[in-house]
Order: sequence, then structure tokens, then C-alpha cells
Amino acid sequence: MAEYRAVRERLSFLELCKTPSAAAEVTLQPVEHMGVDAAILFADILLVLEPLGLGLSFAKGDGPVIAHPVRDAAHVERMPRVDVADSLSYVFETVRLVKHTLAGRVPLIGFAGAPFTLASYAIEGSGSRNYAHTKRFLYAQPAAFHALMARLVDVTADYLGGQIDAGVEAVQVFDSWVGNLAPEDYRTSVLPHMQELFRRIGGRVPVVNFSTGTAGFLELVAAAGGDVVGLDWRIALEDGWRRVGRDRAVQGNLDPSVLLGPRSVIRERARALLAQANGRPGHVFNLGHGILPETPPDNVRALVDAVHELSAR
Amino acid sequence: MAEYRAVRERLSFLELCKTPSAAAEVTLQPVEHMGVDAAILFADILLVLEPLGLGLSFAKGDGPVIAHPVRDAAHVERMPRVDVADSLSYVFETVRLVKHTLAGRVPLIGFAGAPFTLASYAIEGSGSRNYAHTKRFLYAQPAAFHALMARLVDVTADYLGGQIDAGVEAVQVFDSWVGNLAPEDYRTSVLPHMQELFRRIGGRVPVVNFSTGTAGFLELVAAAGGDVVGLDWRIALEDGWRRVGRDRAVQGNLDPSVLLGPRSVIRERARALLAQANGRPGHVFNLGHGILPETPPDNVRALVDAVHELSAR
Repeated sequence: MAEYRAVRERLSFLELCKTPSAAAEVTLQPVEHMGVDAAILFADILLVLEPLGLGLSFAKGDGPVIAHPVRDAAHVERMPRVDVADSLSYVFETVRLVKHTLAGRVPLIGFAGAPFTLASYAIEGSGSRNYAHTKRFLYAQPAAFHALMARLVDVTADYLGGQIDAGVEAVQVFDSWVGNLAPEDYRTSVLPHMQELFRRIGGRVPVVNFSTGTAGFLELVAAAGGDVVGLDWRIALEDGWRRVGRDRAVQGNLDPSVLLGPRSVIRERARALLAQANGRPGHVFNLGHGILPETPPDNVRALVDAVHELSAR
Repeated sequence: MAEYRAVRERLSFLELCKTPSAAAEVTLQPVEHMGVDAAILFADILLVLEPLGLGLSFAKGDGPVIAHPVRDAAHVERMPRVDVADSLSYVFETVRLVKHTLAGRVPLIGFAGAPFTLASYAIEGSGSRNYAHTKRFLYAQPAAFHALMARLVDVTADYLGGQIDAGVEAVQVFDSWVGNLAPEDYRTSVLPHMQELFRRIGGRVPVVNFSTGTAGFLELVAAAGGDVVGLDWRIALEDGWRRVGRDRAVQGNLDPSVLLGPRSVIRERARALLAQANGRPGHVFNLGHGILPETPPDNVRALVDAVHELSAR
């Protein structure tokens, strides 16, 4: 969006996250210009790594860089206790500003990274293709890996609790990288920590458990928790919902790249996806992953309009 | 392997592919040093793009680059007819040299890229994260996309036929990138072409249908064909085999990163995987994707030894 890029000309990505007035402004842009049914907090899943002493920066065009990656048990041990009310207060201030401006027009959704995705960034030091450092850590130092996951559950539970206290009306937990694991590694190294996280944050607002690339072990993902299970686009919604269980809600799952195609295809794919949901309550229409940077904003607006029109039937 | 790196000091990757004596030498290295049960032809899935006039090079450390990416129907139309016996003769010569040296000790497996994976390289011009160009092409120009896939089926069927004529005793079709598609796109844009390819090459030697990231639509992948369905590591072997069907063989599916871990973990994971196969005929033990460059060769040897020992029980 041009409106977003205008703000980014004044502020770096991290400055924007840490400037509540600006973060609130860009949080509201899709609501004003796209007609979406909820606002999504502008923030980054990696912000919690900064108070943990890992050093976070965003290299221009190259994504996040962690200055002090975690590679051994001693590093996990010496990670400081985090008081999120202090170190992440700017996020909660953004929530309050957005809530004030929205004045109840649409709900506000908060979010955080899931422990495995945070751990893999903390260990790799950047994005990764194969997660070689993370898996070597997991195989060779399982106790230290569990300790790191437990620390990340602590800070994430506090962080999401703070967002809820500040007023968000739903939260989403993003496990963007967990789909690179074998099912057995998810079961032993991730599942217990996810269950603990969902136990701690549950019962206050609806919680979405989102992951990508987990079609091979979706039952385990569902067993982790969450009121809503987010599906990526690489499984049919009806298959995913059956495997998650009809007693749970699902969110998804249009391939974000559909928004690069012609309007006729966008509308047809929205229709086909809604047909799979078949009017059943508990389907939250969404993309199956983040929007691609090259997406024309007008195509997003066309999708929102199509979903509203086709859902009303 | 040090032995491989020594050869690469003399020859670039593409020179190595095109020098049968050297390609035969590196094909045999894992057989000599690792004790594996088959040789796998040294080649690259993208070699077929060169006679199609797309221009292929390998930038040092940066992977393949296609000089003339395919972006419209006219380009598909003007792609030249390929006589693989001429343009890819160096591959068939490598096969004959390897067969001669092996003298029946272990079988030789040939391979090719699957049409979608080749198409996505041809369209993107390099590796990609989101396949934005490919999907835009597929959505906006479906007829041209089908024409491109049909051309790639033609050249790939000839190419695998030539490998079989030269003596390979099995072939594998690699659909490395198809797991980025939504199931419905696989069904409409990929499946018919895969069925045609497997129809053309079937019945002469065993054919392996390998893909990654397709756990969401494995039934469709199995429906495409192949005597053996290759599974990546992101699904439990027993779940994958059930979904593929017990009447088919399966290949896989140890997480390649396990080879970065301690020997005790490598052995334990091999044991657990064989336990899932449960002695049933039709399981080909393999990694769930390519070996990682940083893998210690001694760990591969340890895995091969463990599989031989544990399978014999």
C-alpha cells in the first residue's frame, strides 16, 4: 500500500514497530482502505527476542538478523528474565491507541510467534532454508532445547496476556517455520510447549493456532490447542477441517499468490473456498499465509468485496 | 565428500555434468565410500532446459540461473524441438561408463525433473520462495501453461527413455517444488501431465514419483503414477504409506538434517523408521530429501551401516 510505504519513508521497520502513533496508523490502513472485518496489530513476531538479549535488527531487504544467536545450554541459562510490561510497553500502547480510534467499529487481533518459530530464529540468527543449526541443537542438546522453548513460552504467554489486557479481542500464534520438522520432532519437542502456552493464554479471548507446511501432522497441531486452527493453502479446506475436527473453527486458506492473478480468478477461487466451507459456522475466511509484497492493493479490495458478497448469499 | 570437492576444483558444476568420465567418477564415489545399495547418476534436473533454448548457468554459490525465462505463450510456441540423443548425449555416455565400471555390483538409478518443477524454474529464471511468476502465469495464461507442461513432458519422456536405453535400472522423477501449489492447482494443472509422463515411461524399469511438501494432497500425487512414491520427512512413513496405498511401494523418509546430529540419534531414527515400515516389502529406505552440504560423510556411512544391520534382523 502506498499509504504504508509513505510511513516507511520516515521510519525503519523497527522504528515503526516502536512508535505507537505510527504503528497504530498502519494498523488501521487496511481497515480504512480494504474494508476488512478486523484490524491486525502492526508488530513483528521477533520483538520478544530483543529483551531476551539476543539483539534484533532488520537489514534492508534481507529480513531479520539476530546479533547473538543461541547455540548452547549456557546461553539459554543466562538469558535475562523479561518484564514485558516494561520492555514491550510500546506494543501495548499501540493496542490502546488502535482501540481508541476504532471505537468498536471492527475487532483488533493481536499476535505472537510460536515458541518453535522464535527458537529457530534465535538459534539460526536469521531466516533459514534447512534449519540446520536448530535441528542440530534439538538432536544434540535436547534438554537445552526444551529449556529454551520453556523460556519462550514464559515470555510469549506474558506478551499475549499484555496484549489482551490492553484490549485485543483475539490473538493468533504464528508457527511459521514448524512445518520443517518431522512429525516425531513436533510431538516430542514442540507439542508439550504449545499445549502449555495455549493453557496459559486460553479462556480470555479466541486464540488462533496458525502454522504452515504442517499438512503431514495436522492432527498433532490441532492437539496443541487453540480455538481456531489456521490452515495454509497447501491442503483443501474441507480435508483440513475434517482432520482438525468439526468441533473446532478453522481459518484460511486462499493461496496468497491468487491475488497476483486476474480478478476473475480471484473471485472464482473465493467462491470455491466458500463452497468448501459450505456455510458451516466456524470458518474464518483468510489467506493461507502472509500477503506477498508485490500484491496489487486493488486486488485485495476485490477479494474482500467478493467474500462479503458471496458470504451473504 | 573430499573426493567430490577435489573433482570440483578442476571443473565447474556444469562442466562436470558434461564431462562423462568425471560425472561417472563422482557417480561412483558414494558407492565406493559409503556402501550404499545403488548408484545415482550425477547430473542436474535442469540440463533439459538448455536444449530448449532457455540458457542455463550456475552462479557460484547462488544456484541455477535461466538466462531467458518463459513469460508468455509466444515464448512457449517458439521453443525448439529437442533431439535428446544429440543434445543430452553426454548424460547417456555417463550412464554407459558407470554401468561398465559397476559391472553389475549395484544398480544405477537415473532421474529427471518433473514438468512442474522444470516449468517453475523456466518461468521464474532461478530458485524462488513464492513462485509468484509461475503462479501468475498459471492463473492468467492457463492454455500457455498447459502447452509448456506438455513440451516439458515430451522432452522429459525422451530424456528418461534415453537413460533407460543407456542402461539405468530405475528412474526417479523429482517434483521438488510442486508442494507450493494448492491441491486444486495440482489437480488441474499438474496431474494430467504427470499421468501422461508416467504413461510414456512406464513398464520398462521401476519409476519413483518423488515430491516434497505434498502431505496435504498425497492422494493426488499417488494418482499421478509411479511404481514407488517418494515421501519427504514431514509426514510419518506409516501415515504416508496408508494414504498412498499399500499396493504401492514407498521410498523415504529420514529428515536429512538427522545426519547433522550425534551418531546415537542417527541410529535411533533409522531404527524408528524401519519399525514403521515393519518389515513389509516395498519400503526403500532413503532420506526424505537431498543431503545437506554440511553433512559429515562419516555420518552417512554410519547411517548406511545402521540400516544394513537393522534391516537384516
